[in-house]
Amino acid sequence: MRATIMYKAGDVRIETVPDAELVEPTDAVIRVSRACICGSDLWPYKLLDPVAGGRPMGHEAIGVVEGVGADVRLFKLGDLVIMPFAFSDGTCDFCQESLQTACTHGGYFGVGTVGGAQAEAVRIPLADGTLYKLPIREDDALIPSLLTLSDVMGTGHHAAVTAHVTRGKNVAVIGDGAVGLCGVIAAKRLGAEQIIILGRHPTRIALARDFGATDVVTERGEAAVEQVRKLTGGTGVHAILECVGTEDSMRTAILIARPGAAIGRVGVPHYEGTPASQKAFYGNISVGGGPAPVRAYIETLMPDILEGRIQPGRVFDRTIGLAEVPDGYRAMNERAALKIMVKP
Amino acid sequence: MRATIMYKAGDVRIETVPDAELVEPTDAVIRVSRACICGSDLWPYKLLDPVAGGRPMGHEAIGVVEGVGADVRLFKLGDLVIMPFAFSDGTCDFCQESLQTACTHGGYFGVGTVGGAQAEAVRIPLADGTLYKLPIREDDALIPSLLTLSDVMGTGHHAAVTAHVTRGKNVAVIGDGAVGLCGVIAAKRLGAEQIIILGRHPTRIALARDFGATDVVTERGEAAVEQVRKLTGGTGVHAILECVGTEDSMRTAILIARPGAAIGRVGVPHYEGTPASQKAFYGNISVGGGPAPVRAYIETLMPDILEGRIQPGRVFDRTIGLAEVPDGYRAMNERAALKIMVKP
Repeated sequence: MRATIMYKAGDVRIETVPDAELVEPTDAVIRVSRACICGSDLWPYKLLDPVAGGRPMGHEAIGVVEGVGADVRLFKLGDLVIMPFAFSDGTCDFCQESLQTACTHGGYFGVGTVGGAQAEAVRIPLADGTLYKLPIREDDALIPSLLTLSDVMGTGHHAAVTAHVTRGKNVAVIGDGAVGLCGVIAAKRLGAEQIIILGRHPTRIALARDFGATDVVTERGEAAVEQVRKLTGGTGVHAILECVGTEDSMRTAILIARPGAAIGRVGVPHYEGTPASQKAFYGNISVGGGPAPVRAYIETLMPDILEGRIQPGRVFDRTIGLAEVPDGYRAMNERAALKIMVKP
Repeated sequence: MRATIMYKAGDVRIETVPDAELVEPTDAVIRVSRACICGSDLWPYKLLDPVAGGRPMGHEAIGVVEGVGADVRLFKLGDLVIMPFAFSDGTCDFCQESLQTACTHGGYFGVGTVGGAQAEAVRIPLADGTLYKLPIREDDALIPSLLTLSDVMGTGHHAAVTAHVTRGKNVAVIGDGAVGLCGVIAAKRLGAEQIIILGRHPTRIALARDFGATDVVTERGEAAVEQVRKLTGGTGVHAILECVGTEDSMRTAILIARPGAAIGRVGVPHYEGTPASQKAFYGNISVGGGPAPVRAYIETLMPDILEGRIQPGRVFDRTIGLAEVPDGYRAMNERAALKIMVKP
């Protein structure tokens, strides 16, 4: 089968690899109906040191079950399913607590012997705990929005949940990537009154406004902090969704926080020490977040998608075939594309 | 009047200063009945650069109201009151939200023109918002425990609250100072099942056990982490009370955290970047806490003191007069005393 392999920063290739197949009796194999390129894929695209044999890429998909191991009980051939970006057994203490990204037996796609989803097919470990069966057909118009439940919409929601967004609060979303935009949707959905997006890309900002952003701050650093303070009567923001992952963006998050605020960070942190630690302390500002348990959030968010109340699928602005995936990485890295859907 | 002034690290003197007196119509003046030396006073005792004119010390007291400004409505001469370590107006948004340490008009004792409590008397700004009237007499046996509500017991409680301690959770308390010991009381009071204290001072550890600690880890660094993992079935701790404030103690807090855990930090952080930021991220570990709104917690905690369910006053192991305060600093700094009560 064909699959996406990254060999080093900037070097993404489509190659023929052994077909995805069942290994454990708890595995399923899905034919990938739709996959995505993720903002988090751009970190290795910028930084990856050469990897012998390459790294399989892709961790978001909707697919059709084409094989099930002997112990798989909940899925059968032909089922249309969402594959969350992490696999999980669904039974351990952490899964029971809805923190599937800490599953005792879980892990991530594209790591070790588990392949990636930017491919014709992918093996799903612990299929019963991992997959979620969709109640629609493969060609449904809602597919793009449902596809975001495999990562970016669940991740934006996690940022909002860990930032303690509740009705009437004011919220800042740092980052205008797909996760940030989904964070705007999540904040609005949870009842935020004021939603300030920090970003500067015109079409993304326009989409953020459609999704519910009430204010836009295009400045960065100190100027951004000043602007957010102006927009919040001088006191700062209750809830901050940090959707970038750089030290600068985290510093901004802390500096715009109102005393007692919570920051939910979902951008993979590319810093060793969380900055402005004393500022956070003296303001009683909490910093939480991490890899989103999107498996848990599928059930929370899906009704709003099925009933049309939220449309996170609008973050996709380009659809490509597998052969074009290397170009897709380039386009997303240059911010010429917001989020790319892949039809293998 | 006589008051404690610190001139630089290690240089604490008892001096004659102008009497505390009313400045604003919202002020009160209290005669200090009992004050304390705080673990946080030891930071400047170790590190303070020379200060011209010196810095007045002390931020914890029970006292008797000896003067009230024209706008003070809730207190009268002779009232016995607790003075929390921060003053606050009681009316701003933050005070209404029970975050008095972020009060719009508030501040800390011993800073600027506001004196310290290791003195014969102290001016209380914003008396109506700041003070809390005690329902007992100045010589009551409960005074030591009630005195801890001005800081250490409220601070230990804040660590527990911001670490999300709830019934049945396992808890680690880092630090065997007075705040850590009060953290043990708070964790037990909130229903923690297992309470692991990380400390090594024999008499403090014995007190921690009396207060409810179920396990003791005397190791530090990697060895401590390994020991805590053993005590928690390999997964780590739900709730961590970080009561020290060093980079090492915060790193330990993160490394012993169970995925999804919360860390409540109340030790003033003596580091710029919160360490192990990626470990915290991948474990969905939140870091919260800060200066405790002890004014809010007085009402929560006082019934348990008045009715004898908790005895935080046991952290005091020495009572001295004002003249002995410089020796008291020395004793606490050498860990020869746990917490010192001052009777000016």
